Amino acid sequence: MHQPLPGTEIADLDTPALVVDIDMVDRNIAKMAALARAAGIALRPHAKTHKSPIFARRQVAAGAVGVCCQKVGEAEVMVAGGIDDILVTNEIVGRIKTTRLAGLARLATIRTVADNAEAVAWLGKAARAAGATIGVLVDCDIGHGRTGIADPRTAAELGQTIANTDGLRFDGLQAYHGSIQHVSGWAQRRAAAEAANAKLAAFRAAFAEARLATPIVSGAGTGTFEFQARSGYTEWQCGSYIFMDREYYNAGGEDGGPYAPFEQALSVLTTVMSLPSEDRFVVDAGLKTMSLDGGVPELRDLPGWKFGFGGDEHGKVARTGPGAARPKLGDKIHLLPGHGDTTINMHDEYFVVSRGRLVAIWPVAARGKNR
Amino acid sequence: MHQPLPGTEIADLDTPALVVDIDMVDRNIAKMAALARAAGIALRPHAKTHKSPIFARRQVAAGAVGVCCQKVGEAEVMVAGGIDDILVTNEIVGRIKTTRLAGLARLATIRTVADNAEAVAWLGKAARAAGATIGVLVDCDIGHGRTGIADPRTAAELGQTIANTDGLRFDGLQAYHGSIQHVSGWAQRRAAAEAANAKLAAFRAAFAEARLATPIVSGAGTGTFEFQARSGYTEWQCGSYIFMDREYYNAGGEDGGPYAPFEQALSVLTTVMSLPSEDRFVVDAGLKTMSLDGGVPELRDLPGWKFGFGGDEHGKVARTGPGAARPKLGDKIHLLPGHGDTTINMHDEYFVVSRGRLVAIWPVAARGKNR
Repeated sequence: MHQPLPGTEIADLDTPALVVDIDMVDRNIAKMAALARAAGIALRPHAKTHKSPIFARRQVAAGAVGVCCQKVGEAEVMVAGGIDDILVTNEIVGRIKTTRLAGLARLATIRTVADNAEAVAWLGKAARAAGATIGVLVDCDIGHGRTGIADPRTAAELGQTIANTDGLRFDGLQAYHGSIQHVSGWAQRRAAAEAANAKLAAFRAAFAEARLATPIVSGAGTGTFEFQARSGYTEWQCGSYIFMDREYYNAGGEDGGPYAPFEQALSVLTTVMSLPSEDRFVVDAGLKTMSLDGGVPELRDLPGWKFGFGGDEHGKVARTGPGAARPKLGDKIHLLPGHGDTTINMHDEYFVVSRGRLVAIWPVAARGKNR
Repeated sequence: MHQPLPGTEIADLDTPALVVDIDMVDRNIAKMAALARAAGIALRPHAKTHKSPIFARRQVAAGAVGVCCQKVGEAEVMVAGGIDDILVTNEIVGRIKTTRLAGLARLATIRTVADNAEAVAWLGKAARAAGATIGVLVDCDIGHGRTGIADPRTAAELGQTIANTDGLRFDGLQAYHGSIQHVSGWAQRRAAAEAANAKLAAFRAAFAEARLATPIVSGAGTGTFEFQARSGYTEWQCGSYIFMDREYYNAGGEDGGPYAPFEQALSVLTTVMSLPSEDRFVVDAGLKTMSLDGGVPELRDLPGWKFGFGGDEHGKVARTGPGAARPKLGDKIHLLPGHGDTTINMHDEYFVVSRGRLVAIWPVAARGKNR
């Protein structure tokens, strides 16, 4: 165990370390808040990305109406950390989880989503037992093909069921399409988002026909929010913009370059631990430090070399061309992970830096809270 | 938060939950201990798999000489948990990590590996400052191509450097080949292990020529230990056998069936959270609950269905043929993860079961200890 002091230079941190530049983070937070304000849409950032009430409070202070969570366990951490308005964007089923959610609803404004009448009954029973009210959105499948109801009329019927259930309040609908977030190419991503928007319009029409008001229409992500501004959404769920991971960055912007409205604030600091040959070195971070699902990390500030996973605790870095000097044993290397959310979930703490020096160590308080 | 009581049936646990059958674990521990005893080889199980001193103590009680760790942080947890003989199987470089390792060497028998003279100097300096002795093995590359020295004569020279360094004790060599562990097919795996054994013989000859005794020759894993019995190894580092994950199981046994000397003791319990269609259901476990690097999990006891990752917190299960009944909302499903080590590293606790009921909840105490 070693706890470095504030003021420590980044290169003197022990590794691997999850490093976050707080100045970039605060600029990202301010920028998304301004974009939502300009669009007249409420911002409810997804806390599944950072899993930290500290970052959540900074987002709320900048104008967010509250946060989204994926899991009841994340919501418990957020409420304990001072967040009082939460949407759990995921189906909550069974006695234990609905009881926990209803308990939270005694302490904060709690909403969740449903795509099944039996789940609605569970939620209602738990809410009544707790003497609480849970707001519920119908989860509508606008093309993602994961959870949610794909037929608009069936979705409206479930809305009526929610409205008729004591202990619950029908609040509107969720329409999130995850798989279009990373579509490569700005125009292709816009086209995919517009197809999803057209499906949302059909759901809104079905709810209107059923005379069900939908004060909340929640959805969109970091990759599509700009295409989902004038399409019926009342709030955006974007999460990744706070750190702007490589997958989003590389998805492509309007100008043909990277998609770069936000700064890449997150990196994994590693140490060169072995120098097996002139064309290869090994760093001390592998699959227990960075996730695989967003592809391999990129090396920051190190042209001429390429990272490859070398098992649970190793990264094998290979020369891609002649000329680049090989780092020395003990040198520190920044990696940019492909997918922030799943990488952050492996770490116990953020090493928060400003202008090249440590300013704080913050816990990833909801890390592993997958229940 | 919800902490179930001992006696709770598995199907009544909240999910996702990392479930371990302690009866299977204890049989796996006893079986590997017996195999090592019969081969006349010391067993030093790798604690990177379970990251828990509780399991480590059970292995030592069954005859293991100590454990292996990948990281100093894991070793710190093991020493605090009562393990007094540890080999850190990974290159340790830099002031902070060598200082931490030397501190541990005041409390327990500590060994590590080296492939670089500068790293040896760091280790020696830290050991002398702490007034401790660190045992060091030369890390020899017998074909893995990650860390380690590939040339036998160079390896022997480093052995001499270690022997000449105050504060260090030259203890022998490490010869671990990670990538042959999962070679598909028993005969193919044996051939790969025998090629590695031939390389080990060249290293041993070089050390003998340099008149350096190598009392410890450490290596082998769950996939190759049986082929590395009469080849110069004095201790086996096998780790995965304790839970026997799917990747090893599917690698193929001598009879053409699965490689099954050990029982699959680990599963991830999930809940059916959404029923979008007759041919599809969704469970509450995704990339933040199970790692991707060992492939997709298999469904236990559920023929006719196939798991696919559906993002950070979802698994999409699709029908593979007609006839299989679809589970109901709230039903519990066991998944067998591809790779145990990286999956366990996402979880805060083991739900330890025996004969279908919970007996204890044990922390994954070294989870995330990647420094």
